Formats: sequence, structure tokens, C-alpha cells
Amino acid sequence: MNTRRKFLTGAAVTMAAAGVSRHALAGLPEPVIQNSPNTQKPLIPNSGRDYNPVVTLNGWTLPWRMKNGVKEFHLVAEPVVREMAPGFKAHLWGYNGQSPGPTIEVVEGDKVRIFVTNKLPEHTSVHWHGQRLPNGMDGVAGLNQPAIPSGKTFVYEFTARRPGTFMYHPHADEMTQMAMGMMGFWVTHPKVKNPDIDEVNRDFCFLLSAYDIDPGSFTPKPATMLDFNIWSWNSRVFPGIDTLNVRLNDKVRIRVGNLTMTNHPIHLHGHEFQITGTDGGPTPKASRWYEVTADVAVGQMRQIEFLADEEGDWAFHCHKSHHTMNAMGHDMANLIGVDHRGLAGKIKKIIPDYMAMGERGMADMTEMEMPLPVNTIPMMTGDGPYGSLEMGGMFTVLKVRKDQAPNDYKNSGWFKQPAGTRAYEWKGAMPAAKRSNNAGESAMNRVQPKPEVEVQVKKPGTNNHKH
Amino acid sequence: MNTRRKFLTGAAVTMAAAGVSRHALAGLPEPVIQNSPNTQKPLIPNSGRDYNPVVTLNGWTLPWRMKNGVKEFHLVAEPVVREMAPGFKAHLWGYNGQSPGPTIEVVEGDKVRIFVTNKLPEHTSVHWHGQRLPNGMDGVAGLNQPAIPSGKTFVYEFTARRPGTFMYHPHADEMTQMAMGMMGFWVTHPKVKNPDIDEVNRDFCFLLSAYDIDPGSFTPKPATMLDFNIWSWNSRVFPGIDTLNVRLNDKVRIRVGNLTMTNHPIHLHGHEFQITGTDGGPTPKASRWYEVTADVAVGQMRQIEFLADEEGDWAFHCHKSHHTMNAMGHDMANLIGVDHRGLAGKIKKIIPDYMAMGERGMADMTEMEMPLPVNTIPMMTGDGPYGSLEMGGMFTVLKVRKDQAPNDYKNSGWFKQPAGTRAYEWKGAMPAAKRSNNAGESAMNRVQPKPEVEVQVKKPGTNNHKH
Amino acid sequence: MNTRRKFLTGAAVTMAAAGVSRHALAGLPEPVIQNSPNTQKPLIPNSGRDYNPVVTLNGWTLPWRMKNGVKEFHLVAEPVVREMAPGFKAHLWGYNGQSPGPTIEVVEGDKVRIFVTNKLPEHTSVHWHGQRLPNGMDGVAGLNQPAIPSGKTFVYEFTARRPGTFMYHPHADEMTQMAMGMMGFWVTHPKVKNPDIDEVNRDFCFLLSAYDIDPGSFTPKPATMLDFNIWSWNSRVFPGIDTLNVRLNDKVRIRVGNLTMTNHPIHLHGHEFQITGTDGGPTPKASRWYEVTADVAVGQMRQIEFLADEEGDWAFHCHKSHHTMNAMGHDMANLIGVDHRGLAGKIKKIIPDYMAMGERGMADMTEMEMPLPVNTIPMMTGDGPYGSLEMGGMFTVLKVRKDQAPNDYKNSGWFKQPAGTRAYEWKGAMPAAKRSNNAGESAMNRVQPKPEVEVQVKKPGTNNHKH
Repeated sequence: MNTRRKFLTGAAVTMAAAGVSRHALAGLPEPVIQNSPNTQKPLIPNSGRDYNPVVTLNGWTLPWRMKNGVKEFHLVAEPVVREMAPGFKAHLWGYNGQSPGPTIEVVEGDKVRIFVTNKLPEHTSVHWHGQRLPNGMDGVAGLNQPAIPSGKTFVYEFTARRPGTFMYHPHADEMTQMAMGMMGFWVTHPKVKNPDIDEVNRDFCFLLSAYDIDPGSFTPKPATMLDFNIWSWNSRVFPGIDTLNVRLNDKVRIRVGNLTMTNHPIHLHGHEFQITGTDGGPTPKASRWYEVTADVAVGQMRQIEFLADEEGDWAFHCHKSHHTMNAMGHDMANLIGVDHRGLAGKIKKIIPDYMAMGERGMADMTEMEMPLPVNTIPMMTGDGPYGSLEMGGMFTVLKVRKDQAPNDYKNSGWFKQPAGTRAYEWKGAMPAAKRSNNAGESAMNRVQPKPEVEVQVKKPGTNNHKH
Repeated sequence: MNTRRKFLTGAAVTMAAAGVSRHALAGLPEPVIQNSPNTQKPLIPNSGRDYNPVVTLNGWTLPWRMKNGVKEFHLVAEPVVREMAPGFKAHLWGYNGQSPGPTIEVVEGDKVRIFVTNKLPEHTSVHWHGQRLPNGMDGVAGLNQPAIPSGKTFVYEFTARRPGTFMYHPHADEMTQMAMGMMGFWVTHPKVKNPDIDEVNRDFCFLLSAYDIDPGSFTPKPATMLDFNIWSWNSRVFPGIDTLNVRLNDKVRIRVGNLTMTNHPIHLHGHEFQITGTDGGPTPKASRWYEVTADVAVGQMRQIEFLADEEGDWAFHCHKSHHTMNAMGHDMANLIGVDHRGLAGKIKKIIPDYMAMGERGMADMTEMEMPLPVNTIPMMTGDGPYGSLEMGGMFTVLKVRKDQAPNDYKNSGWFKQPAGTRAYEWKGAMPAAKRSNNAGESAMNRVQPKPEVEVQVKKPGTNNHKH
Repeated sequence: MNTRRKFLTGAAVTMAAAGVSRHALAGLPEPVIQNSPNTQKPLIPNSGRDYNPVVTLNGWTLPWRMKNGVKEFHLVAEPVVREMAPGFKAHLWGYNGQSPGPTIEVVEGDKVRIFVTNKLPEHTSVHWHGQRLPNGMDGVAGLNQPAIPSGKTFVYEFTARRPGTFMYHPHADEMTQMAMGMMGFWVTHPKVKNPDIDEVNRDFCFLLSAYDIDPGSFTPKPATMLDFNIWSWNSRVFPGIDTLNVRLNDKVRIRVGNLTMTNHPIHLHGHEFQITGTDGGPTPKASRWYEVTADVAVGQMRQIEFLADEEGDWAFHCHKSHHTMNAMGHDMANLIGVDHRGLAGKIKKIIPDYMAMGERGMADMTEMEMPLPVNTIPMMTGDGPYGSLEMGGMFTVLKVRKDQAPNDYKNSGWFKQPAGTRAYEWKGAMPAAKRSNNAGESAMNRVQPKPEVEVQVKKPGTNNHKH
């Protein structure tokens, strides 16, 4: 805990000493800009006891200042360069130097004032998704307010009336601006005890976003509807997403919001969890299901909670297999399963060692020295203790350790598995396979009986692909 | 209420006076054809007290006649012209003059007889989705009945055994016929009190459908699997979808069914709601979650309910950003983020003012005088009190007003926000931004430590897009 | 029941007599290979009373042997030829001769040892989705273990700690290997009574998988992200999927897992069901909703349960209309609704009988004698008692019969509907339609009032497509 910065009330003003002031402050809080994609330490509240702050994966919480009983924040909408993984930078739009923008963290009942400065080349607005607020503060440009012109600053004011998990994003040229990365998290901590809101030891949050960035380029195509190639958590992709490092038997909460164009089934290994809240509020305890995969729909937020009672390194990822791949892995042509219709066979008659690229699957490709376009990371990558994980995109690891200190979020390295608890190679001999004798003893008949077609079942070791 | 038509038992027969009878009636109820895409007034039941009728957004309820204790309806499957928004007409297939077909509204325990006349160029059938009924009335052509040939009328008979939210659609050449717009709503009101079915003040319903209509053409492509460009509620798109006009503190129910090819996360601003029922029945009260976004899966129906206790104009829409766009906004090529790979830079050396179309986002385009193909509406449109909403597709507004009369469904215009409750422009001076001093103080290490890559964080005002 | 094989403890060894042993057994269980895509009879446990075994649709349960109190299984990962429907074989990767692999069925508390032999051309691993187990047994190659090289056998050991519905699949080159069909079901039956786990009369299971196999070819394209054309249950497509044959008033459980790239809304006709469990555990009874469509997200498993109290043949299918079509039906060009922009009209002036293919819908095409590429089944097919069902893909039938014997899973043919319970043709005369008199009496105004556009509503019998 000795490295934690204690933000005082008026933290941003305190920090302004090092800033370059081009204008008089004139009452507007100086914007704090983040220049690192690293996961920042939680922003401990003034008293240190008000609430357990969240940790934003590869993100940060925006400092505020108190002014006459109002928490004042300053968001700057602007073009940013986001390092999505080491070696891969994207030209996005975000807030205060990064995409997603900083997490806003307040307490139930807080009065908040948010200054929003628009440094984008077009107008914008901010919708405070899920909040109860006056209609004129809801942020739908054209309907609730005029859009914020480029170069101008608008002010939003409301009371954080209910505790929970929220997000903010533009509601002006919405498709473009979200496709470019404009979004941020909002957490309102409960002020009073609520039987459906448990205290937890660790509280993580992140947003799901998708981009279409051609290999070798830097800027997303904003009009893509379905064929995204970069599937990210907080605009980071594996191996660029930080791990979630917790202590054995910690109660852990993870808050997830989805601003892509499809559902993301978020899957945790080794533990069952419950969905304890949505952007609409906490879920009644009796209504909760145990799950290992939470399907987070677009525009939805889910809080999942579990007891981290299994030590080890546990995969945590979207279960759509393409969403754990980086670019260049989707809709490729020249791989196994391409309809070679005998072509490879014919070539082999001439060149016996001929093998089509990827003919044996794609795992080989993680080991190949393939020349990649600039600013592109491999589609499957990430070295683990036992070789390549062959993953990308929406993938990281939950690290559960006996010896993780209560307030320490550091990654302690790879798990050392106790002897005799890892899958091991069988060194004995191999028996031959046997065909089941129950062929033809079908329990059912078909809807539409047809002449039986002889199924060519291969003996082990036979190449099925001859035909 | 003085403009409400009271439908008598035998309403359709009553109305037959104005019809053109080419054949003897011979016991078949005259079909009622609707020629307007306007939201029609609710069809008040005979007693006026049996149930609170639903309002079908941009739709209507089919009158019936009583015959020996049976409610008789007449559906006509036929090609229709549907105005999807002012200035945009689609050539669809529907029922009784419109797509979707009319809502069928009955009471639990009612005996119903539905005559279905097929005026399509191919055979059809009607499946009564979610109903308990004899197997031969379930409507799967080939399995439960022969298909209804073109030009013929078939009769379905069953008892509406359980109250709830249902739909009807073909189960013959199903993909084509639903892609062409053939579907309709069905509501069975409860006869007896059910603790899980609350009374409400307003009860709206609509179906989600998607079309692939090339700009400048009129007829959907029926074999499209994913790349739809028209995302509709009841075959209408914003700004053609009527608003939901309610009184402050009304208890409101909205019933939604999905017959597209993807999930639609239906999002309401300013209020939390609960899912109170599915096409399988009412949900137990203790099992309900508060949500602001209901993910409605394909072939599913959801009833959402909430107290409209926040006055104002509240956006109500699908949260997938492309589903609140009209055609021509998807998979466009020539916009910001297109991989210009230095091209614009090179051109700028020659022509300093050069700007690629859409380079600053797409909001500009709502104000351009772009020539559109005939029968095409802009991708982002809809004027609000503060300018363009820059929306299309599955978007409308919930209007909550103190002074909306209990049975009045009229749109009372834009909300007048009380003074001091709207986001406002900051007129003061602007301080400079400051970089956070916590760069490098990451709370976590990476999965795979790599040589740090210097992140170029822009100062405000700097153009990030140079590289 | 007289045809049931009773598997003894050590069943696989017993069966080894007929096998061809190329190597000494040396302690490794001989792998059992299945050469039939038929639904095999349930594998009755030794005592006959331990549990009610599951029936895997078009699949089978893997025999095991007991060795010192451990249940030993042997999985062989290998290329297979899977008959997906009569006349259509796919070259997939699977386990023990089929894709999906055999179902593994154990009891809560069982110690299990699974030998996995890799006969694929690339390395693999097995992840035991949803299980509680030591971190080194979780199967993520690179993270939890080294990948299993081609030609090697690895051993996994853990205790089946909690009852429920699970699956297994590779976690190495995952996208490719699942796109090729590598997956299998796992059921752990409860050892002790659990108030949230009911006993059932029938217990079916299957996995959802999707393939992209060009018409005329045999091998899936493994890098397809969205545009799949083969939507399967247990790697079978209608009419190749066996029916679910149950007795009237049976309590039925169906377990479904999804390993595709999109949600599948599984819809049952004629009955409401509840979701009684997930891969995370049983659902509390008070939390359950009645549904007719369960949206199964990717990487999720759902148990649905219902009382089969309606006799008949009931459709059971994914509700996405393209998922009940076989290949060649998606994104076709030459059908109704193609933008003919007057072309057909012009041609008709010259050739009066001209009709574009599919202009009247697609039902005609099921009756055409279209030449198909080899190894391709029609997009819409399946003969029922009343003609073609015009279906494919993820579709089958639940058959509820009074006279189905308790342990009989045989298909008893088409349902004989009692007289007067089937939709019938109306033989009387047809009245003319009438336009509703409520046009223009809209209950609502528009968001954006615009000049009214006259809607051309057709009279019945008029061709709408003239314009």
C-alpha cells in the first residue's frame, strides 16, 4: 500500500502544479490526461474508508475536485493514440488521452458536475447510460440538448441517484464515435447497505469494444457492421490485456459493459460465478444462477461475482473463438479445409513433400517467421510457461495466489503447479482401436428413412483426406 | 375517448356495408384491409371493461365477429406496399394490406377460428408461435398440415388456453416469407387474476424485423443471412416510427417479439424496467431483474414493464449502433478511418485544403445535400428540438408528460425542459491539460513482458493522425 | 429393453476381444471407435440404478473401465468422416471415429482418468469446460500444460466434483480445431438428492456446431468467422437429425451446448419449458422462467425441462430462419426480391411467360429437379406426412406418443391427428375485402411530421409489384 497515491479532495488542482496553463483556470477544472495504457492503481477515496475503489483493466480513474459540495470532473473528447498491445498502436478517439476514457467513480447521492471539452473534428455529446437524471442531461444530441460543437465545452449536472455499474458514450454520430473508441466506465458505490450488494475484496471493470483496422494501418473503419477484426477489452488485445491478480479466497467482482455490435459470452475457467447486478440495478439474490459463461449483450452491463477459491492461472476470455484471435485470422483463404479438391494430391505425385500452407491446422503458424505488415500483431500469440497460448483479442488470465497481499495488484508470474497435478504424457505402448459393435443398433429411426450410405470410418493413422 | 370506435360483437360484419362484395359471404368473414401505416386507436372490447387493449406501434388490431361462441378472424396473406418511413416504400408480403399483419387480441379461454386466405404467388401456412393447441393446428407445413396453396383459404381452430404475448408467422418457405415481412402479433389477455400479471395503464406492442433493400429499389432480398440494411420495428424505421406517449406515473408495458436473424438489445433511457413475461408465460416476480437493456433473442418475445416516473423525451432504441442507422451507412468505403496510408498526406502537399469525405466523422453528412437514390431515406436523420438526431432504424422516443390524458395516445410535441436542467455551454476560459504523473506506475505487470514501446501521447490540439 | 447392452465395469476391455491389437495393452485402455452416426442406445450403468443415462442425438456414450477405483476413458483425437445427413459426408476432426466425440458420463464424486491420444496432424489439448479441477488439468495449452504433440498420448486426472452439464473441446489452435468439429458432451449425474435437480424420464443431449463447407466439397473452411452455411446439431443437419421420441406425460430434459460463433435460440413447439441448469450448476426453482425459446449463447450450456403433455409431432429447431436451411440458401442472388429494376418487366414484353428464378418465393425450388453439386443436400428438404417440410440444418421433431414404451427410443412414425383437429381448407365462397375506415385516424402523431405520402394499398388480387 505504500505506493498508493492518496487523492485529496481537489486532487486535480493539486496536480495542476506540474501542468502547462495556457489559460486562466476561471473555475474550470484542469483536465488530467493519461499517457499510459497500464492498469493504474485504484484511486483511494479521501477518507480511505468510503468504498473499495475499482481497478480499471489497462485504465484509470479520473480524479475530481470538490467545489461547494459538488464533485467536478473534466472530460476531454479528443483523438488519441492507443497502444492496443506492445507493437500495435491504433489511432482512436477517446477521452483524456486514452480510449476508453477514464473511469468515473462516485458515491450514491453525490452531486456531480462534468465538464466535457470537445477536441474532436466534429460535434459530440455524452450520454450517461443507465443514470436517472433530468431529461436535459441525458445527452442525446438533437433530442435532449444541442450537440457540443468542436472546440466547445459543455457542462452536465446531476445527482448519482442509484448505486451501480454504468457507462458513458456519445449520442451524436454515435456509430462513428463508438467505432472509434469513445466510451468510458462509471461506478456509483452504494452509500447505504443494500442486501443485494455484497462487499468484495477486488473489483475490476472493463468495456468490450471492436475495431476494424486493416493490417498495416492505424485507424478503424467506422462503418463496419459485422466484420470486425480487432476484439478488445478496454481497447487492448491479448497479450496486451493485464491479468487479474487476486488472493486465494478473495471475493471478486468483475464489471463488464459491451459497446460492440454482437453479444460476448465471457467465460471464466475453474470457478462458477453469479451475475449480481446489471446497469439496471443489483439482482435479487434468490434470482441468481451459477454460470461459467455470461452472455453480455450490446448496451448491457453485467457484474459477475465469485469466490476465488482455486489457486492457479485460469483463462478468462470471450468464448467466441474468433474473438480470441487478432487480425489476419478471419476469413483467410489459404488454410486447411480450403477446397483443394485433389490439387494437393496431384502436386504430391510430383513433389512428395508438398504441403499447402496451414494444411495441418494453424498452430504451426505461431512458430513461423511470417513477415507481418507494420503495426500488426500475430493473430495467435502470447507465450505462457508451456509455450505459445495461440490466442489474441479478448483473452487474459485470472491469477489466484495464496500469497497475494490484500491490496497488491501485481502479477506474481506463472503458477507453480503442485507435483502430480498437471496433465502428463503417457509413456507406455498404444493399443489398437476397436470399432464399436453397436453400429446399426440405432436407438431411433430417422425422420425420413433413406437408403443407408456406407460410412468410411478410418482406422487410426489413415489419411481421411484422400477421396 | 370520444373518437374511439366501439367495436360491437360482429364488428367486421357491421363494417361490411361499405365493402364491395364480389361473392356471397357464405359464412366467411369479410376480410378487413388496412391502408394506413399510422398507429391505430386501441380496439376497445365490447363491454369496454374486459381488458385494457394493446396499441400496436404503426399498426392495428384485427376486428372479429362472434359466431356461436367462437371469435372469427380473417387473415389475408398478400403482397403489400408498406410505407417504412415518409418517402420510403417497400414491396413486402404481409397480411390484410400491411406488414406486419394486424394484431389479434383475445381473452384467455376464447374459442377462436381464423380463416387464412392465401393471395401470395406461392403456398404458405400460419404457425401460432407459443400457443397450446392441437398438433394439427400448429401450422408447420408438411408436418402438421398440407401447405395452403395459392388462392385457397384454410381454417385454424383452437382455444386460447393461456394468457400472454404471442406472434404468428408462416412455417412454409419460412426464410423467404419472414424476410418479406410476413408476421403479426397476438395478445391473449388474462381472464382471471394472476399474481404475476399486473394491470397497466398503457400496453404497447411491436415486432422486430430486418430487410435487405438496396438503395433505390423496393423489394427485399430474401436470401440475405446477415448483411441487412433496414432494421425495423413493425416494418417502420426512424423517423417513421411513432412515439410512445404516456402520462407521468403511468405503469407501462411494452411487448416485443424478434423475427430477424440476430439479437436486439432494446434500451430505454431514464428508467429501469423488468421483464415481466415471455412467450412462455409471466415471469415470477421474485425472479425479475431491473435492466435498462433487454436482449431480445430471435424467436423470443419479451414484456417489459416500468413506472414512467421521469418526465421528458426519452430515447428508446436498439443499442446496436448500426441498427439505429438506415441504409447506406453500413460497410461504406469512403469515410474516416479508411486506410488512406498516407494518401491524404501526399495529396495535401499538393492541395492543402484536401479532405477525404467523412474524414471528420459522419455528422457532417446529415447536413450535406447528398443526392440519394429514389425511395431511399438518409442513413442518419430525424429532426429534434435541438437539431438532427442523426439516427435511423430501430429508434423512437418515449414521451412522458404530466398532462397526457389517461386514454390519449397523441404526441404532444417536444418536451419543455425546466430551466437549469439542460446541459449548457461553458463560457469561461480553458485550462491546459496535464499529463498524469502515474505513467509507469502500473498496478500490474503484463502476461508477457516485452520491451516497452514509447507511447506517443498527444498534447491537446496536436494532430494525432500524422505518422 | 431386451436389446440393451449392459456395460460391465471394464466394458472396453471386455470388448477388446474383437479388436486388432498392434501393441501390448500396457495399461492403456483400448480406444473404442464408433463408425455409425446413428443415435446409440443409452449406456446403462453397471447397477442399472445409479442414474438415468443420457441419449446423445446421433451420438453415443464412451465406455470406460474401472481401475483401482478410477474410471478410465480413452479419447482419440483424429480426422473423421462424418455423415451429416444421408448423401452428405464431411471431412472433420473429431474423437473416436465421429464428430462430435462420444459423451462422457460419470457420477458426482467419481475419480476419472482420461487418456487422450493425438492422431491429428498438429498438436492439441483438451479443456474440460465447466469442471472444477487442478489448474494443471484445465487444458489450456501453453498456460496449464504443454500441448499434446501429434502422435502422443497425454493423461488427465481429476474428480468430477459437481453434478451437471459440461463439454470438452481443444484449447490449442482452438478456432481451427472447433471449426473442424472437435468437441464432445460430458454429463456428471448427481450422487445425492439435490432439490434443484429433478428426476426425468428422458434425458437428451447435443452440441451446436457450424461449418463452412462449399457445395461440392468435403472439408470446412476453418477461418470463417460469420458466414457459415452448415448449421448442425451434433454435426448432423435436417433431415439427418434423429427425432426425440418420448411418451405422453414424460418429464423430458434436453441438454444443449453451443460451440459456434453466434447465439442459437432453440424453440420448441406446443410446450413451455424451463431452464433448469447451466454449465455453472442447477438453477434455483424460484428463479426459473417459462419459455418457448431458449437463447443458448456461445460457450454456454442450457438444460431445458418440460412435461411432454401434448401428443403429436412438434417442431423443435433454432429460430433463426437461415439456421433451418442447408447450404446454397444463403446470400443467393437470383431469387425474388433481387433488384430487377424493371428488367423482368422489359423481358416480359418480349417473352410473356418469363419468370425470374424464385420470383414467386423459394418453395417451388424444393420441387424442382435442380442439379446439385456432389456431396450436397438441398437447402430445404425433408418429407413429412403432408409434403416437404422445406427445412434443413438445426431442425428436428419431438414426437410425443401415448403408446411409446418407457425405455423405448424408437421413432413410431408420423402422428395420426384425431379427426377435426387439423387445419382444413375452406370450400365456401370468398367475400371481397374492405378497406378499414380508420385510415387517417392515427392515435399518434409522428416524431417529425412530414407531408403525407399517399400509400397505394392494393385491392386483393391486384399485382403490387407494378410500379
